[in-house]
Amino acid sequence: MQGKALPGFRDFYPEDLILRNHIFATWRSVAARYGFEEYDGPPLESLEMYTQKSGDEIVQQLYAFRDKGDRDVALRPEMTPTLARMVAARVQALKKPIRWFSIPQLFRYERQQRGRLREHFQLNMDIIGEAGPLADAELMAASVDIMRGFGLGPKDVQLRISDRRVIRGLLLGRGLTESQLPTAFAVIDRSERVPTNVLEEMLTSAGLGKGESRAVFDIAGLRGPEALKAAGEVAEPLGQAVQALQSMGLGDFVSIDLTIVRGLAYYTGIVFELFDIQKTLRAIAGGGRYDGLLDLPALGFGMGDVVLGELLKERGAAPKASTELGAFLIAVGGDDLPTMLQLAHALRERGISVEYGLRHAGVRKQLELASARGAARAVIVGPEERAQGLAVVRDLRTSTEAKVPIRQLLNGYFD
Amino acid sequence: MQGKALPGFRDFYPEDLILRNHIFATWRSVAARYGFEEYDGPPLESLEMYTQKSGDEIVQQLYAFRDKGDRDVALRPEMTPTLARMVAARVQALKKPIRWFSIPQLFRYERQQRGRLREHFQLNMDIIGEAGPLADAELMAASVDIMRGFGLGPKDVQLRISDRRVIRGLLLGRGLTESQLPTAFAVIDRSERVPTNVLEEMLTSAGLGKGESRAVFDIAGLRGPEALKAAGEVAEPLGQAVQALQSMGLGDFVSIDLTIVRGLAYYTGIVFELFDIQKTLRAIAGGGRYDGLLDLPALGFGMGDVVLGELLKERGAAPKASTELGAFLIAVGGDDLPTMLQLAHALRERGISVEYGLRHAGVRKQLELASARGAARAVIVGPEERAQGLAVVRDLRTSTEAKVPIRQLLNGYFD
Repeated sequence: MQGKALPGFRDFYPEDLILRNHIFATWRSVAARYGFEEYDGPPLESLEMYTQKSGDEIVQQLYAFRDKGDRDVALRPEMTPTLARMVAARVQALKKPIRWFSIPQLFRYERQQRGRLREHFQLNMDIIGEAGPLADAELMAASVDIMRGFGLGPKDVQLRISDRRVIRGLLLGRGLTESQLPTAFAVIDRSERVPTNVLEEMLTSAGLGKGESRAVFDIAGLRGPEALKAAGEVAEPLGQAVQALQSMGLGDFVSIDLTIVRGLAYYTGIVFELFDIQKTLRAIAGGGRYDGLLDLPALGFGMGDVVLGELLKERGAAPKASTELGAFLIAVGGDDLPTMLQLAHALRERGISVEYGLRHAGVRKQLELASARGAARAVIVGPEERAQGLAVVRDLRTSTEAKVPIRQLLNGYFD
Repeated sequence: MQGKALPGFRDFYPEDLILRNHIFATWRSVAARYGFEEYDGPPLESLEMYTQKSGDEIVQQLYAFRDKGDRDVALRPEMTPTLARMVAARVQALKKPIRWFSIPQLFRYERQQRGRLREHFQLNMDIIGEAGPLADAELMAASVDIMRGFGLGPKDVQLRISDRRVIRGLLLGRGLTESQLPTAFAVIDRSERVPTNVLEEMLTSAGLGKGESRAVFDIAGLRGPEALKAAGEVAEPLGQAVQALQSMGLGDFVSIDLTIVRGLAYYTGIVFELFDIQKTLRAIAGGGRYDGLLDLPALGFGMGDVVLGELLKERGAAPKASTELGAFLIAVGGDDLPTMLQLAHALRERGISVEYGLRHAGVRKQLELASARGAARAVIVGPEERAQGLAVVRDLRTSTEAKVPIRQLLNGYFD
């Protein structure tokens, strides 16, 4: 059974899964504190679910195939269509607002990007059925508290917030027409990554004059309170959401930044991204309000495990060791085996992680195995001590030993 | 976004995921106590991995397709090939015995079985690098302790153990030839499910005489110590494994039963299945030793989430409610909002699950929502009490209220 995983797919050896489980546990813990319930859907769905939302071009980026029942199916590239399907099926019965989260594995086949991952896990948190800005604040606060749960502070990550209604209002106010908005949004989105002359050409090609082009760059440069002031009434939800984050004590993480647009066409209101401050182009999470997709107001964000995992490793915030072994048990002779097994099971019953040598070997060799496994202590059951109802407990860090009654070991000595 | 999940695939609404998470948590907890480390691999693998092990016919039962890079790939139908691949890639570096577990989602496309599930989650626990029967006992004990972890006892489930070396030895000892063994194994495997005359015909067709046919039924009927006695030396590993389970105090769960054969061809030694006693044909878990598959001795078992989930529901052993909400916060007026948000965040910081009304509404309406969410208590922040530094804490079960200093609520009042 030789061979490798498919290109773009990861094997998770135990040392890798420690990090993944740490990420998942932190996600779940914060989501629970925020009163979100976990759901999941199938990793394989009808292809139509994705083409309906994103158009037929999306097929190029999917693991799509025809199954043996002649259905066009795809490995899920995102969770929102599944969420929408599940909510639609029970929309009457579900209490609103719906506060749900999920940790799906998502798949993309991108031909041109060799060496890049084709799967990742992504936390999805969504609120459905609430139009007010406190819902936006709630989701953004959860994303920040996840960062804090990993030990990251406002000097590590920043939440950049914008509102597509605000950008739109400002652009129209400066004389742009509706038909020029898509180009203007695209330029604002790229204003930090693409040279100015390229962006200017994009605007000129779309028919914008000098004044309108300048307006686009002016708006992209608006930050903080001045953005709110410039936009007036249309900026009220954004202002309220930021105020709520400040009331929660998270103001240090937050900045209003109108260059945040989010590529996906379906966002309709507040949008936000969490950034790694040391690599400002690296987004850790992103999301926003997408009121048009369902029959209900809706908002959500996604946070992947890959960029986050790299960040945690870089900052030394990844967990080091596995859950350590509480005890490694050793039977000196064959007659000691039943007592050792009884003891092993009793300790496990008390929640202690226990291993023992699965084949007979000398005590020295078994002690080596115990150390290799990272056990805190060894418990040696030998004929002489056993005759007196005792066993030897050896602390593998200090190399000290003590004789302890087996009865005590069976009844909570290590608790 | 209408539509359903694909046939055979499950949506997990929050109430479904509670059970799934309970199952996964119990699996992980017992595995950790037994010193097993978690790993995972990709859900999509090279098709060749499965045809190499199981022959080309397996393709009929798989979600297999050609990807955009012209690779023949399949959604994993089982975890063992992935395990074998991952172990082979690092066989030198990995400390033996390897004790690993995983909880993969597995996929099978079985055309003829409409209405049956095409995916399930399955705990896989394996020990690699240990040939002795204590390793078999270790795995079987873990499977039983998982049942005990779910609150099931020896009157709910039984572990039936056999050993293919024992069955083989007994059959050869009663005069069967090597070439008759596969048919004999098949008959023993089915002896509890298929009428005797059908089985007799199978044996006759394979060229067995009356004496040999009788031998097959005799051997299928052997139970407990008489099976060990009849087999002699070849039964020693089986005897030692059973003895070890007895030393651990799990003897009540265990019976030797030579009708346990396990269909898969690759098992080479002790094999076992966990059965639901009330429905004796319903296996909850199964596994055994497969020393031939890797270059190392190996053994493992699988336990799926579907039959187990049904069993837990039938016995009333499934968890009822979600993690309940610790508090639902209510702001009476807009001016109370900042204090309420500060309090919400402070309580969440202390690990308490908190929700609040995301839009302004009357107190009565918000109390209704609090009850609908299953909150233990409501905390009402209103202008009068707030002026005195107080908030109202309402116990939603007893409908009693108390005024509590906000400072105390911020600093561990509910801890």
